Amino acid sequence: MATVKMIEEKAANGSVREVYDDIKETRGIGYVPNIWKTLATHPPTLKRIWAGIKSVMAPGSLDPLTKEMIAVAVSSTNNCEYCIRSHTAAARKLGMDDEMLGELMAVVGMFNQTNSLANGYQVEVDEQYMNTG
Amino acid sequence: MATVKMIEEKAANGSVREVYDDIKETRGIGYVPNIWKTLATHPPTLKRIWAGIKSVMAPGSLDPLTKEMIAVAVSSTNNCEYCIRSHTAAARKLGMDDEMLGELMAVVGMFNQTNSLANGYQVEVDEQYMNTG
Amino acid sequence: MATVKMIEEKAANGSVREVYDDIKETRGIGYVPNIWKTLATHPPTLKRIWAGIKSVMAPGSLDPLTKEMIAVAVSSTNNCEYCIRSHTAAARKLGMDDEMLGELMAVVGMFNQTNSLANGYQVEVDEQYMNTG
Amino acid sequence: MATVKMIEEKAANGSVREVYDDIKETRGIGYVPNIWKTLATHPPTLKRIWAGIKSVMAPGSLDPLTKEMIAVAVSSTNNCEYCIRSHTAAARKLGMDDEMLGELMAVVGMFNQTNSLANGYQVEVDEQYMNTG
Amino acid sequence: MATVKMIEEKAANGSVREVYDDIKETRGIGYVPNIWKTLATHPPTLKRIWAGIKSVMAPGSLDPLTKEMIAVAVSSTNNCEYCIRSHTAAARKLGMDDEMLGELMAVVGMFNQTNSLANGYQVEVDEQYMNTG
Amino acid sequence: MATVKMIEEKAANGSVREVYDDIKETRGIGYVPNIWKTLATHPPTLKRIWAGIKSVMAPGSLDPLTKEMIAVAVSSTNNCEYCIRSHTAAARKLGMDDEMLGELMAVVGMFNQTNSLANGYQVEVDEQYMNTG
Repeated sequence: MATVKMIEEKAANGSVREVYDDIKETRGIGYVPNIWKTLATHPPTLKRIWAGIKSVMAPGSLDPLTKEMIAVAVSSTNNCEYCIRSHTAAARKLGMDDEMLGELMAVVGMFNQTNSLANGYQVEVDEQYMNTG
Repeated sequence: MATVKMIEEKAANGSVREVYDDIKETRGIGYVPNIWKTLATHPPTLKRIWAGIKSVMAPGSLDPLTKEMIAVAVSSTNNCEYCIRSHTAAARKLGMDDEMLGELMAVVGMFNQTNSLANGYQVEVDEQYMNTG
Repeated sequence: MATVKMIEEKAANGSVREVYDDIKETRGIGYVPNIWKTLATHPPTLKRIWAGIKSVMAPGSLDPLTKEMIAVAVSSTNNCEYCIRSHTAAARKLGMDDEMLGELMAVVGMFNQTNSLANGYQVEVDEQYMNTG
Repeated sequence: MATVKMIEEKAANGSVREVYDDIKETRGIGYVPNIWKTLATHPPTLKRIWAGIKSVMAPGSLDPLTKEMIAVAVSSTNNCEYCIRSHTAAARKLGMDDEMLGELMAVVGMFNQTNSLANGYQVEVDEQYMNTG
Repeated sequence: MATVKMIEEKAANGSVREVYDDIKETRGIGYVPNIWKTLATHPPTLKRIWAGIKSVMAPGSLDPLTKEMIAVAVSSTNNCEYCIRSHTAAARKLGMDDEMLGELMAVVGMFNQTNSLANGYQVEVDEQYMNTG
Repeated sequence: MATVKMIEEKAANGSVREVYDDIKETRGIGYVPNIWKTLATHPPTLKRIWAGIKSVMAPGSLDPLTKEMIAVAVSSTNNCEYCIRSHTAAARKLGMDDEMLGELMAVVGMFNQTNSLANGYQVEVDEQYMNTG
């Protein structure tokens, strides 16, 4: 159980209810996931994070599936179970199959490996990589 | 400077030379980046990591640009300067513009944020997310 | 279950018993929490960590509640469930309500976000920030 | 240098200029720090992060100094140099002296230590810590 | 349960079966651990990671027990439960007793502490430490 | 430069001077490294961390070189430059050659990789690994 008492749907009102309704409509789901019922214990955070996610995950130069897979990559690196499971589920819905997940995880694993090698040996950045702006 | 003395190209021979030649040919570059000259101090690691990266980064279900952007996401989360700069440079070569990098970083930032929120509140995983296999 | 067999209270003697008694008295609790029964498998670590925590968490320029909230911030960033739950409980005892926890988590989330943005873009430190000593 | 070309003040217009002006006014400084000139390469991110920080860092149940110290705690745990230096500078301005920084860092260090001990031994959460909501 | 459906032994064939057989023979165990049944959902990753581990963990300048203890150190720092438990079990088999685990964890805890102190204060590297190559 | 003004040797007195003298004698060096001159800005932390390190790094069931290599493993995973460089230097003094460092880094890299794979796929712990106490 979370470290706060979640705000259940029937207890939601005001700005919390508005966000809950928007989550269910935007996602096309009939329930409010636990992360939102937890953040609702601090309404300004609920509102800010939900608005941020809606904006960040909207289709743009990168498509929603790519964005969900990047979310899985970040969450796997940080080891956030809730986030790994929810973003994997979201990516599945958008078409990620085992082969794509396999490639995603292979990339995530490889660069967690090389990150620790480059840091551990304190490899100096090649000047060819310095001017990417 | 790295914590080992790198193996410069003119000092490379045997399996190290072979990997160096393959790196320059595969990448179409006229020099060997520092990470490889560092790993060359332990030839089995040089060989294993290079073979692994060639295999993992090859086009598959995910395209090379998506893979490089995932590498940037992982490296940003771990804060590996060498890796951030080299993979950003690689993604640039494959067509990533400021807008795409902006969306990538927005996603990376957002989920580093929500990862710490989900963990910090110890949010329980919704059962709807448990069955993704 | 832990990866070692914990030292239960009835089996404790010598320096382990002394620390156990001090923990119960200092904290005003009738039991010894699992972290201490685990560290007791290596008595010098038990003694050193307990003495360190007593000293570090004592009131000083920062008050105990602020210190417990910083402990929650660190533990949330590292995703240590035991630590998140025990320090949240300790902060609750010292008066942290949902609003304070909400602000704490909002700050923790925000800076986990901006940390990855500053690292991911490799933003150069402004010289105005260099001279804080 | 950052991995993108920063938007200098003289090149800023539209929503970027508005944010730049607000930053300088809100902070009472005559320049725009590099993090914002970097995020300005993706205007929706600049706007969202700045609005978020203004809201999150405003005085509430926690005072601004406590919030800046929590920012230092998170940034030290993640090792973000830019963030450590900028939030340490901000906390200094708000009155943090060497003694307070010393206590802050002692707490940060201690719980990075105990986090790895609790995780490394896989200590089970005491039931007394489970009901904090 | 994992985020993919594991490949059970009776369903394994081709290169997956070969790896499974090699794992059981090399480790002298009568079952295939879950990590391998999970990686088998992406056969090239299964093959690459197993070959890598066999090579990396073979006796060399460092003995297998030291290598398993380093694996516990890394996994404790990253908080990977699966990895902590499996490498602790492997180290136990190779002779690690509670005293050795206690010293290992004391070292892991201490340097997670000092890492955050050195980063948090942004301590400059002494020139005496720069020339280790 | 650090975020505090370090206490130089000539300005040290009382408990700070005692620790400085002990560091130089114990380590057999003619100077005080920057980490200690930084921690000296908060004398109780200086004293506690130095006493802790002396105790933790003393020969025991694990030898000092193994302990220094574990310190390098933790510091590489956390990316603490100061710590990587100082512990690599210490391990070199105790006899670590390029081959040993190569094996150490190969192990560190491999398990940073598999940590993210086990977490990313949320692999369930085999019951065979649960009873190590």
